[in-house]
Amino acid sequence: MKRSDLTRLISNKQSFLCIGLDPDPLKFPGQMKGDATATVDFCKEIIHATQQYCVAYKLNIAFFEALGKDGWDILHEVARALPANCFKIADAKRADIGNSAKQYARAFFETMPFDAITVAPYMGFDSVMPFLEYEGKWTILLALTSNAGSADFQMIRDSEGKPLYHHVLQTASSWGDADRLMFVIGATHPNRLQDVRLVVPDHFFLVPGVGAQGGDLDAVAKNAMTKDVGILVNATRSVIYASGKEDFAEAAAQEAARMQLAMAAHLPHDTD
Amino acid sequence: MKRSDLTRLISNKQSFLCIGLDPDPLKFPGQMKGDATATVDFCKEIIHATQQYCVAYKLNIAFFEALGKDGWDILHEVARALPANCFKIADAKRADIGNSAKQYARAFFETMPFDAITVAPYMGFDSVMPFLEYEGKWTILLALTSNAGSADFQMIRDSEGKPLYHHVLQTASSWGDADRLMFVIGATHPNRLQDVRLVVPDHFFLVPGVGAQGGDLDAVAKNAMTKDVGILVNATRSVIYASGKEDFAEAAAQEAARMQLAMAAHLPHDTD
Repeated sequence: MKRSDLTRLISNKQSFLCIGLDPDPLKFPGQMKGDATATVDFCKEIIHATQQYCVAYKLNIAFFEALGKDGWDILHEVARALPANCFKIADAKRADIGNSAKQYARAFFETMPFDAITVAPYMGFDSVMPFLEYEGKWTILLALTSNAGSADFQMIRDSEGKPLYHHVLQTASSWGDADRLMFVIGATHPNRLQDVRLVVPDHFFLVPGVGAQGGDLDAVAKNAMTKDVGILVNATRSVIYASGKEDFAEAAAQEAARMQLAMAAHLPHDTD
Repeated sequence: MKRSDLTRLISNKQSFLCIGLDPDPLKFPGQMKGDATATVDFCKEIIHATQQYCVAYKLNIAFFEALGKDGWDILHEVARALPANCFKIADAKRADIGNSAKQYARAFFETMPFDAITVAPYMGFDSVMPFLEYEGKWTILLALTSNAGSADFQMIRDSEGKPLYHHVLQTASSWGDADRLMFVIGATHPNRLQDVRLVVPDHFFLVPGVGAQGGDLDAVAKNAMTKDVGILVNATRSVIYASGKEDFAEAAAQEAARMQLAMAAHLPHDTD
């Protein structure tokens, strides 16, 4: 998907919401509970109920791998069920030396219809380039993550006081331009968002941490939005597990609609 | 597998060789060539031919994922085919926020019989701890990798001149002791091995980069071995693709035997 197509989606849907799909059978409602074979149905019902309110879905690959030997087959089926008018993210946090990274890129960009994959930066350029080589596909590189452990290494400062995540932002933006590279920037660091935006003024950010992790949507919009929006804000548990009961899809739709409305207030009105 | 069991394997087999399994159908010999369904047979033949010469196998998950929707099922089958008297490594380079990392740990330690998984450090402690919580299982954390991109971030120095990979070694060794945490240290940095060994005197190292990547076995053994050996040296392409022809398993066995012999020279003789 081109950047112009993504921004058009955002404008048309008046939303920059990404919904995370972390299917955990133990959290499925009613008769689905504990049944891994219900994963496709659970995801499809969430997708069907929420697709008008979000512009992206983010499939958390960990939850599919934990389903056992059929997990990858189920992942393929859910990936194929994602609607055309959404940006499809594999939240895989992969990276490896070049010949292995090529295989990961093949898996997510060729054998499955993903538009984007999350990638870890630790191994450097040759572990990231194989993902960036795909025309029309996106690499979403971890920079400043939303979790407590982000303080362990990402904030280590060099002799000039520059933290590691700044190095990642600056170095990686020489590998890929804003038409195929995004960064993960957690909503749980509101006081660092403006600063990050100064380092990479044009790249899209995928922003986790709003919702169950407690980040603030308005602070993210205020500090990180660009002229063409430039952010995708993810919510997972607060949407897909909004109700633990049979009305889970309806409850997910309600929460997604609530977030869409909050996001629309930050967007120029669609004049198409 | 306990550390004492691993060191006993090394002593009994007079080898600290880990064989990497990166099954690429395009490199399969003869009639297997290009046939993803031949992956299990290819891997089983390599395993059968080489198991007396190595103490560990490392399955590169990228290559299984690239096989398409059956890739995970194939991975499960190859993992189950690994012999009891070897240390079983999932080379997955995973890590994510805690609730996702738990799912990755479940996938590799509960739904498959791996003894160890490679993990990326960028996201910090809560992305690594779920792997370390398994009794008898091992986390192999990336510290100083063998690829060219290792220079991009791993060697950035803080204000006291300490490179990032030293921070990873020191910080992570407070998360897990030498009985369940190892580090990836590339053989392509021979002049840094002694230095790394001083920082973490007891932890096992998984050392890639000997073989196709050009690292030197003797330099690794001289600079990184501990009293109870403390290293697993990996070779992949130089073993499994030693011959591109029908005699691939025999050629793999010859190359593995050659490496085992070279390793035995660095080991005290088995007196059991």
